[in-house]
Amino acid sequence: MPFKNLLEVVQSCDKFPYDESVSTSEYHSTIPFRLGPHVVGRLLPSTVPKLKEYNDRFDNAPFEIKDTHITFSSGVDSFEKRTDVVKALFDTWREEKAFVALAGWRNELYPVYGDLSRQDNVAFVMERAATPIFGISTFGCHLNAFTKEEDGTIKMWIARRSKTKQTWPGYLDNCVAGGITYKYSTHQTMVKECDEEASIPEHIAEKSRNCGAITYFTYSENGLQPETQYIFDLQLPSDVTPKPQDGEVECFYLWTLNEINQKILDGEFKLNCALVIVDFLIRHSFITADTEADYLDILYHLHRRLEFPGPRKTL
Amino acid sequence: MPFKNLLEVVQSCDKFPYDESVSTSEYHSTIPFRLGPHVVGRLLPSTVPKLKEYNDRFDNAPFEIKDTHITFSSGVDSFEKRTDVVKALFDTWREEKAFVALAGWRNELYPVYGDLSRQDNVAFVMERAATPIFGISTFGCHLNAFTKEEDGTIKMWIARRSKTKQTWPGYLDNCVAGGITYKYSTHQTMVKECDEEASIPEHIAEKSRNCGAITYFTYSENGLQPETQYIFDLQLPSDVTPKPQDGEVECFYLWTLNEINQKILDGEFKLNCALVIVDFLIRHSFITADTEADYLDILYHLHRRLEFPGPRKTL
Repeated sequence: MPFKNLLEVVQSCDKFPYDESVSTSEYHSTIPFRLGPHVVGRLLPSTVPKLKEYNDRFDNAPFEIKDTHITFSSGVDSFEKRTDVVKALFDTWREEKAFVALAGWRNELYPVYGDLSRQDNVAFVMERAATPIFGISTFGCHLNAFTKEEDGTIKMWIARRSKTKQTWPGYLDNCVAGGITYKYSTHQTMVKECDEEASIPEHIAEKSRNCGAITYFTYSENGLQPETQYIFDLQLPSDVTPKPQDGEVECFYLWTLNEINQKILDGEFKLNCALVIVDFLIRHSFITADTEADYLDILYHLHRRLEFPGPRKTL
Repeated sequence: MPFKNLLEVVQSCDKFPYDESVSTSEYHSTIPFRLGPHVVGRLLPSTVPKLKEYNDRFDNAPFEIKDTHITFSSGVDSFEKRTDVVKALFDTWREEKAFVALAGWRNELYPVYGDLSRQDNVAFVMERAATPIFGISTFGCHLNAFTKEEDGTIKMWIARRSKTKQTWPGYLDNCVAGGITYKYSTHQTMVKECDEEASIPEHIAEKSRNCGAITYFTYSENGLQPETQYIFDLQLPSDVTPKPQDGEVECFYLWTLNEINQKILDGEFKLNCALVIVDFLIRHSFITADTEADYLDILYHLHRRLEFPGPRKTL
């Protein structure tokens, strides 16, 4: 689907309502999942009766379900206990095919932040595919791999997603991207994914540089997805060509920023990857305040303040 | 005053409360200045009685003052009429020495955005020094002027503010910065200020590149200051040295990023200029998510979503 302008692109991704009071749609009346002083996730109203039904199967119900919020029962008070309780729930729901999101089960554990008594602030871990059901904030890394000619002209490497991918098959994508698995740093994630997704050797991938992060709140048929993507830039030498390796990518293209900008407007990109590129186009002065009418609104959508706690790494 | 960490730096600037319901301080109970569907400014509670007293002097009161908001009276319905009414108010208050902010009168007109019937979205213009009294969102340009050695080492030019400056005398500052006067583009402002403040010749200043914007909401004895600073980067050749010209700057230093980072923590910078540099340090990967515990919170404070309308330039 083509877009009118770049503001429409970023709004189509960062689409969770900013003002929850203005409508009665289910996205305007989500229920916070609380942990102490924090909101660590949000549930759609339609999920709550299912959670109640599950809870009622136990003498010691694992969750406390109130009108205003949901939390763990008082005995579920440690990393291990929270992790066990959440695992049991989603294992059951997976077996019962209770949610479409769980068909994409990945056997990959994601951290849920919000326990400052631990150095890494991780309150529990849970299956990646289940995070949208609890509206858990997730964290990934995306790479802008580009070349720079002597006159300063920048071209960027763009991936075409495999037609057999479960999500966004055949759409355009950043050169490399991946979720941050529990206990990986952002840079370690980037180097690992560079190898797995684009055959970029380690000694080159290590030169990738973290240049910011984008934050947005989207949703899909899977549920609610507040997301943070750490952004890396990597200038590739002209003799290094990304190559597909793990079957996730069909092929790579090297395009000018004009071509890429047009393909974003044409709706050919997986949406959150378009946001990563818009951030790049702003940082590299391809999009400027003097020529883009919606400059500030676009920046707001790239940097949405999420209420959910994030990682706090020990220095 | 030294800071514990960079989060404390950005919070000390972006300090207007995020949740207006949590306290009874005057910053938690500001009154919106409305124009049609927009909030174009905010008044401190202590300003409202003064505005009422002024309003009562007229048979046809220029402002409509309600408990929930303030706006122009219905007859004040054009760019020219709004501008006249606001000019008369602040001319009077200046003469009566009603606000400390007006001692810094500049004879410089700032645009107030919020009238989409005009191509530039400007609802009226007003004296720059008066904007904090109405909590009007203002717009400026700041320059990161830097050098890059062959091994990639970056040093940045930093200005020392003149000891006779009205605000922040003797503090460190960005190499060049200036407010955007009515009818100037961001790039025109930058080139003009490069000449006036640092004697950087036009043919070099023109190479400055807009690489983003920071938005924050601060306050001072002058009043409320929601601000947007458009960020420009300019790599200077090693034989170009900024030189003071207009008496605003005492001298310039060329420092490493480590030195500058330390001086930010030592509290030696004018606060909003520290934010401009933190944004630079993030974009140039001196500060990264793997080493900065508060990475995301810092980004949120650099990109606060302001409720006030901004410029919408015609393409």
